[in-house]
Amino acid sequence: MSIHSRAGPRRCHFSPAAQGTTTMSEYLFDRRDVEFNLFDVLGVEELTKLSRYQDYSRELFEMVLGEAEKFAVGKLAPANAEADEVGSRLIDGNVVLPDNYTQLFKDFRDGGWFAPVHNPEYGGQGLPQSVGMAAIEAFVGSHPSFMFISGLTVSAGHLIEVHGTERDVELYLEKMYTGQWGGTMCLTEPQAGSALGDLTTTATPVDGEDYYDIVGNKIFISAGDQNLTENIVHLVLARVPGDPEGSRGISLFIVPKIRVNADGSLAEPNDVAITGIEEKMGIHASPTCSISFGDHGECRGWLVGERCRGLQYMFLMMNEARLVTGLQGVAIGNAAYQSALVYAKERSQGPKVTDRSEAPKSVAIIEHPDVRRNLMTMKAYGEALRALLLNTAFMSDFALYSEDEAEKTKAQDMLDLLTPICKAFCSDMGFKMTELAMQVFGGYGYIKEYGVEQKMRDVKIASIYEGTNGIQALDLLGRKMRMKSGGLFLTWLQDTNEFLGSLSEDETFGEMAKQVDAAKNALGEAAFGFTASGKKDPEYPLLHATPYLRMFGLVESARLLLKQATVAQSKLSAIWDEKGVSADDAEARQALIEQNDDARFYENKVKTAQFFIYQILPEARAILKSIQSGDRSALEVAF
Amino acid sequence: MSIHSRAGPRRCHFSPAAQGTTTMSEYLFDRRDVEFNLFDVLGVEELTKLSRYQDYSRELFEMVLGEAEKFAVGKLAPANAEADEVGSRLIDGNVVLPDNYTQLFKDFRDGGWFAPVHNPEYGGQGLPQSVGMAAIEAFVGSHPSFMFISGLTVSAGHLIEVHGTERDVELYLEKMYTGQWGGTMCLTEPQAGSALGDLTTTATPVDGEDYYDIVGNKIFISAGDQNLTENIVHLVLARVPGDPEGSRGISLFIVPKIRVNADGSLAEPNDVAITGIEEKMGIHASPTCSISFGDHGECRGWLVGERCRGLQYMFLMMNEARLVTGLQGVAIGNAAYQSALVYAKERSQGPKVTDRSEAPKSVAIIEHPDVRRNLMTMKAYGEALRALLLNTAFMSDFALYSEDEAEKTKAQDMLDLLTPICKAFCSDMGFKMTELAMQVFGGYGYIKEYGVEQKMRDVKIASIYEGTNGIQALDLLGRKMRMKSGGLFLTWLQDTNEFLGSLSEDETFGEMAKQVDAAKNALGEAAFGFTASGKKDPEYPLLHATPYLRMFGLVESARLLLKQATVAQSKLSAIWDEKGVSADDAEARQALIEQNDDARFYENKVKTAQFFIYQILPEARAILKSIQSGDRSALEVAF
Repeated sequence: MSIHSRAGPRRCHFSPAAQGTTTMSEYLFDRRDVEFNLFDVLGVEELTKLSRYQDYSRELFEMVLGEAEKFAVGKLAPANAEADEVGSRLIDGNVVLPDNYTQLFKDFRDGGWFAPVHNPEYGGQGLPQSVGMAAIEAFVGSHPSFMFISGLTVSAGHLIEVHGTERDVELYLEKMYTGQWGGTMCLTEPQAGSALGDLTTTATPVDGEDYYDIVGNKIFISAGDQNLTENIVHLVLARVPGDPEGSRGISLFIVPKIRVNADGSLAEPNDVAITGIEEKMGIHASPTCSISFGDHGECRGWLVGERCRGLQYMFLMMNEARLVTGLQGVAIGNAAYQSALVYAKERSQGPKVTDRSEAPKSVAIIEHPDVRRNLMTMKAYGEALRALLLNTAFMSDFALYSEDEAEKTKAQDMLDLLTPICKAFCSDMGFKMTELAMQVFGGYGYIKEYGVEQKMRDVKIASIYEGTNGIQALDLLGRKMRMKSGGLFLTWLQDTNEFLGSLSEDETFGEMAKQVDAAKNALGEAAFGFTASGKKDPEYPLLHATPYLRMFGLVESARLLLKQATVAQSKLSAIWDEKGVSADDAEARQALIEQNDDARFYENKVKTAQFFIYQILPEARAILKSIQSGDRSALEVAF
Repeated sequence: MSIHSRAGPRRCHFSPAAQGTTTMSEYLFDRRDVEFNLFDVLGVEELTKLSRYQDYSRELFEMVLGEAEKFAVGKLAPANAEADEVGSRLIDGNVVLPDNYTQLFKDFRDGGWFAPVHNPEYGGQGLPQSVGMAAIEAFVGSHPSFMFISGLTVSAGHLIEVHGTERDVELYLEKMYTGQWGGTMCLTEPQAGSALGDLTTTATPVDGEDYYDIVGNKIFISAGDQNLTENIVHLVLARVPGDPEGSRGISLFIVPKIRVNADGSLAEPNDVAITGIEEKMGIHASPTCSISFGDHGECRGWLVGERCRGLQYMFLMMNEARLVTGLQGVAIGNAAYQSALVYAKERSQGPKVTDRSEAPKSVAIIEHPDVRRNLMTMKAYGEALRALLLNTAFMSDFALYSEDEAEKTKAQDMLDLLTPICKAFCSDMGFKMTELAMQVFGGYGYIKEYGVEQKMRDVKIASIYEGTNGIQALDLLGRKMRMKSGGLFLTWLQDTNEFLGSLSEDETFGEMAKQVDAAKNALGEAAFGFTASGKKDPEYPLLHATPYLRMFGLVESARLLLKQATVAQSKLSAIWDEKGVSADDAEARQALIEQNDDARFYENKVKTAQFFIYQILPEARAILKSIQSGDRSALEVAF
């Protein structure tokens, strides 16, 4: 199938994954919930009214999701454990990926999956962010390590597309969006992690040439080298000697591993040396490289855009990168939930507590209340995180392509506000979900057999990179909450008030809405308190930035789950009407739920919102209490 | 140095660890805090008034802790990363431990560390549980994998000591307590994990012999085989054919790897085959074995105690095993905190938020509020967990050896009540501490270099084995809260009320005591509510067992930290008096804190209690709210 019939044969296509040729995978993708988010709650068909998406349709989006699921289940998942086991290795200065990546990478490119949301003019599939993210959930959830190569490459490509010259675009872009060449982002140095302004890599202009001479060392470069693409295009942050110190003097350079001739063919190698790869807790098959530029020979780099604006360019890409990082939490957390759910239904252990018979029989552990609580907690978080992520990605679609200025601005505001929450809350809670899944598995969770421990190891990185979650909290509180004099938050408040207000008299959801409203008020109170206290004690709000972000994540999750519940309830009512079941007839409703997958799905949505609101959301008020305590002990303690 | 002068030369001695012969370790043991717990808060010298401990003294305990620290820092810690890397391997049916364990094991035995708290009549050091646990914290914290061999061996030995025949004791005990032979506990089978009653291993009496014929398969056997001891004594749960089904028909058997002659010498091998070892997330050097008994030849086992009482015997040992599991959380969590603290003081990144200068300078990250919050959270949990564990261990000392019946009973009651909390809360929060530590390290936490990721992988198992933390919560709510018609909890309440009441008018602590009192009342309210609701809906309390245990852990932590703060405050006042500093002179107090380690330690104790009470404890009320919600969604959802 081809999305872009105008694109001719060189375009990539989504092709069905081969069936039955690989080991049966254990990965389960909750396409039902993904589609409920996209079509029933968000209404992504709206996007096809924008000129950018006029060639797209709901049917196409559904097909994409179906094919993504097939590829994830059929190809990516079966290769995951082996890739973790083998890992990436550095052999004679070159990174060698697991053997099973060679075919997988070919299939992935052939399937048209390399750049799902990027510009179709250059080989991307041009899907909306919301739909693209939904598809990528399946890929990351089934095989986290594999997705770094394409992820980093298209991010780097996108930077070239937006800020590069025509020549840069012509030389690099399509090769990157189609995965012929790889790409990286080279930011961190040993002494410059969160504080990028301290970097020491230099770029010295070369007389009479269009390139700079790059010298320096970078660390923690994801997919910094690999043996799957002909060339690798590094985007390197460096300082031109004489430019200002700190963040304001940093520029961005294209530094290809192998230099490129004017006709796009490969020339001689650049001096880009892989000096090491990290041994990490997880994502073993994704090589995290130390790279030395210009240490032995000449390393040429081409300036991207204007001098001294490198960090600014990077930050423009950061919303996208942070959403993808949040998506790792969503994807891996939900994969862990799904496998725990299957296990809990199969594993029999101990009798039900209500079984008073003389010889009580063992039941599946899903019958035990404490196990149900773990599963329901995972379900609630998992669906909340997915809603949070897809809702924010949907905002980014309007922020990028809406033709209505007011709508576009509002969407950008919401995107800016919610991105740090998506990144931090989804990654931390995705990790938490793997922890809960492991408890459901018991000893079988701690060993490699079911892959739960790998999920825990793989997801952990998401809380750390693309700005640690502490940095996200500072971004939210110190920047996003202050932008436009608090206007972003006020807009969010207004929308939330409107939604909750519409439910205040609702028989089914009135009480839940009241709970969410109280938590929302707590969030507002906390924000107001910071404004007051921050003036005379600027450290105090920052001390509470992390709990504040968590609180926001809880409230936004509750709001989104409640929204889903209202949508589900009206769908459920329609089924009742159709089947002639009365809302008061509990027995008939129960029977319907047991027979009808849709009814069960919708009923569960209501229960999930209820669980989140009554079991998890109360923490928001506890956080407000700690914020309002005035306690400065952590600042005062003499460690 | 010898604890037991009467013991003669065959007794083990605590010998100082060699200095300077091994790589400098990064492990830091907070001996100051351990000693504050033991001597200033608990007053373990009291134990020397009991006849069991009449030969011991505070000086001896201090020396033990000093030597334990030396051994941990000098010997165990330097071997930890390599052992993780190499792991244990199964070669031709035999488990081979990392090479560096051979010398380490010899040094450990020579140092007299094999059985610190066990009976000196048979080669143990006979230390109180409280002091022994404190020493073992250093060992587990510096090298978690290594401690399984001695831990399992002495547990198995203790069972033989209590329930075995004179002949069993004579044949096995001293060899086990001194580490000449190893020992294991063989409980779990593939289909019988949490539900041990479902096991299928059989023990058939052999006509005219004193032994049984053992046939069956066990899994997840820690230290199930190793190449460090001459023999291994397995304690195996099995059912004699014809005995009742379920838990009531299970007996316990001694099954030596190599049979033992009447004179204690080794005879021919028993049919005990290691059929596999697990690949695990962590504790790589600790072999987790599958064992097959009597599959090919004859496997002889000797009944321990009476028939059908095997599970009961096991449970009697479980308090001890669960405390040790909690200790893993305390030890590894605190090790992670200490290393994050050192890193945060050394790592420079970004300027202080309050630095308004033109060219702000980067500072150590410990200057940043969000990092301080992470560190303070770790410090507060770390000290609370240690207090919880040592306090409970101290109870067990009185439960075992008090000469006053009332005191002994009360101590046993508190031990029973607090053990599941120690196990679950300490293991979960120890894991949480490694998560926070990793955030402080950022990218450096995810790679192997600083050992944080290993700590996270190693500590995780503690939430799972010795009964998953879900099982602990059921034990607390379903068993311990009901024992003696709620008498255990009432005793705890009475003590807590008394302590908090004594502070109600206190200028420094009155307000904090009020907060803890409210949380304690919430705990009581929740318990009372369960009694009421549990009658008509027995699943409802169980659904909230895990949050209830967490709530109890929070309240008990707050109580203990507040207690510590009051002790510290009076010590601090004494220093002020001695130095002539007035309590009102903040400047002079600050100067004193900067110069005087003791003053700083005590001041920090007060701040730590304050932080826990205002920043962490509010969650307890949120939990009450969720418990009181009546929400049954997790029971009703149709997964």
